[in-house]
Amino acid sequence: MRVAVDAMGGDNAPVVEVEGAVAAAKEFGVPVTLVGDTDRVRQELAKYDCTGLDILVHHSTEVVGMHDSASDAVRKKKDSSIRVAFELVKQGAADAVVSAGNSGATMAAGMFVLKRLKGIERPAIAQIFPTLQGRTLVLDIGGNVDCKPVHLVQFAIMGEVYARHVMGVDKPRIGLLSNGEEESKGNELTRETHAILKETPVCYAGYIEGRDIFNGVVDVVVCDGFVGNVVLKLSEGLAEAVGKMLRSEIQQSFLSKVGYLLSRKAFNNFKKKVDYAEYGGAPLLGIDGVGMICHGGSNTKAIKNAVRFAHEYALKRVNQRMAEKLAESLPDYMQQRQAVKEQAAG
Amino acid sequence: MRVAVDAMGGDNAPVVEVEGAVAAAKEFGVPVTLVGDTDRVRQELAKYDCTGLDILVHHSTEVVGMHDSASDAVRKKKDSSIRVAFELVKQGAADAVVSAGNSGATMAAGMFVLKRLKGIERPAIAQIFPTLQGRTLVLDIGGNVDCKPVHLVQFAIMGEVYARHVMGVDKPRIGLLSNGEEESKGNELTRETHAILKETPVCYAGYIEGRDIFNGVVDVVVCDGFVGNVVLKLSEGLAEAVGKMLRSEIQQSFLSKVGYLLSRKAFNNFKKKVDYAEYGGAPLLGIDGVGMICHGGSNTKAIKNAVRFAHEYALKRVNQRMAEKLAESLPDYMQQRQAVKEQAAG
Repeated sequence: MRVAVDAMGGDNAPVVEVEGAVAAAKEFGVPVTLVGDTDRVRQELAKYDCTGLDILVHHSTEVVGMHDSASDAVRKKKDSSIRVAFELVKQGAADAVVSAGNSGATMAAGMFVLKRLKGIERPAIAQIFPTLQGRTLVLDIGGNVDCKPVHLVQFAIMGEVYARHVMGVDKPRIGLLSNGEEESKGNELTRETHAILKETPVCYAGYIEGRDIFNGVVDVVVCDGFVGNVVLKLSEGLAEAVGKMLRSEIQQSFLSKVGYLLSRKAFNNFKKKVDYAEYGGAPLLGIDGVGMICHGGSNTKAIKNAVRFAHEYALKRVNQRMAEKLAESLPDYMQQRQAVKEQAAG
Repeated sequence: MRVAVDAMGGDNAPVVEVEGAVAAAKEFGVPVTLVGDTDRVRQELAKYDCTGLDILVHHSTEVVGMHDSASDAVRKKKDSSIRVAFELVKQGAADAVVSAGNSGATMAAGMFVLKRLKGIERPAIAQIFPTLQGRTLVLDIGGNVDCKPVHLVQFAIMGEVYARHVMGVDKPRIGLLSNGEEESKGNELTRETHAILKETPVCYAGYIEGRDIFNGVVDVVVCDGFVGNVVLKLSEGLAEAVGKMLRSEIQQSFLSKVGYLLSRKAFNNFKKKVDYAEYGGAPLLGIDGVGMICHGGSNTKAIKNAVRFAHEYALKRVNQRMAEKLAESLPDYMQQRQAVKEQAAG
């Protein structure tokens, strides 16, 4: 299984992309293809000893910028590194894509080139959050702002399969994010989703609240992309604000500063525990292939781990398992959908 | 202006309620009526020197528990302290209500007894969040899970008037919580709300993201009650989880523990800065009267500050200003609504 790395996407491309890809090849033995400007990429590669590593370079002439619109980027920049990376998967020359570029464009390119997985109406982006117990996968944090219940049910199934096979959770518990745990809570969307999930062959734990994301009562948290985006940005913003406020208080007195220096190891351990780079990237679930979306400001470690998990994702045939689980879980729904399709086809 | 305090509501009732009310009467000169079991309340009152303080006690025989349903509590327990407190306002014997009891019941009792403010379809609960710049008011964090754009617009106007007159913000900036700052972002609800707010005479700053709640770019954050609840609980949960993780890291080494002891003052200052008790409670906006909802586990300081802000809220005639601002802001909408009403009436 080979991972195509969009070498031109991130804020520090191709420096961290090349270093991260080399590290993944070295530490985890992952075969890698770096996609981008060959000269720039080779220049970076020359910095490392790549003896015995399976690293290819594939040329592309264009780059999708962070401010390019997702669809324009895909349609207009046909030779962009991100689009070419997905084309390699389509042609069978690679099995997964990792990009730290424009995430909307990555999702659009994945959808456009590889199409959706059988049984999925809306691909989703999932993000791993650190919790008191370990890790929780939250989806969708992507662009699905107005969802129907069946979309959330599909997210739940995709999240279940990913947590089981890539994150190594034995029997993933699924929670539906709501405004309270009681059945009487929720909005129109969650109430209907709740009813379907109770009938679905996953370990469904019912409604969870915002606080439960971090105490780790479930392994997978399902919500629409609007709420998921608020959850993601709020968490980042709150963590940052708490850090800033605390730092400013610590700066106020000499004693506090000394105290901070003494406990710095604890702070660093804590930072490591909540470091997004440990998880590498956010899997793009529901396309007929493997995509891993990294933060634009990703460091080498994040790229390395993203390549590692993308490789796992491809290796464990997660998409095939998702398609099977979907077919098993939503047979009535699938039949209805098939009937509508056939009717439409004439 | 007199504040009726539900003396029986909170987890530590009537101990903290009585102490908090006495403190508010003493420190801020607020006339107070304690509503609840007279014997219990007088027993608590006897602990303090109340000479010269305007404190009344009003008897009620029932208590709404935390597990009572909101509507049952109001209809079945007609002599409950929370319902009686609102009845005092209706009769003109008090001007505001503070309760640390069942928040759903408090909202329901306020609605049932005092009805809605003219121009408001859905009362909302607003919560003050500490930010890097100061404070931000977020609403709705209450039970309005499926909102129409006009509800969010009404929340914006109520929040604007509250921030201006009770929080003392000169020209409150209003933000609409969304999944990105660009106009192309948002869901169906926010897109329509965004269009109306642009035409509304408030200082509308457009879409804000989850991270912006804590960096204080706006003074009022508007969202539906489902999203608002997720925001509130997530913030509480994340702050708690970060504290626990950090504590556990600090416990790991002797040096870290010593360091923590030395910088404890900074930690305490930080805690004070983000202490909910400083703001007392969450105003219930949009009923024809004043209600302040406190956390069930409120301490004396929280009750004291809630009484103080409830008093301000009543004193500054905030509801009248809200009704005026609503009439000024949504004239077309108000006219349409009136027309529909008249048509329905015959």
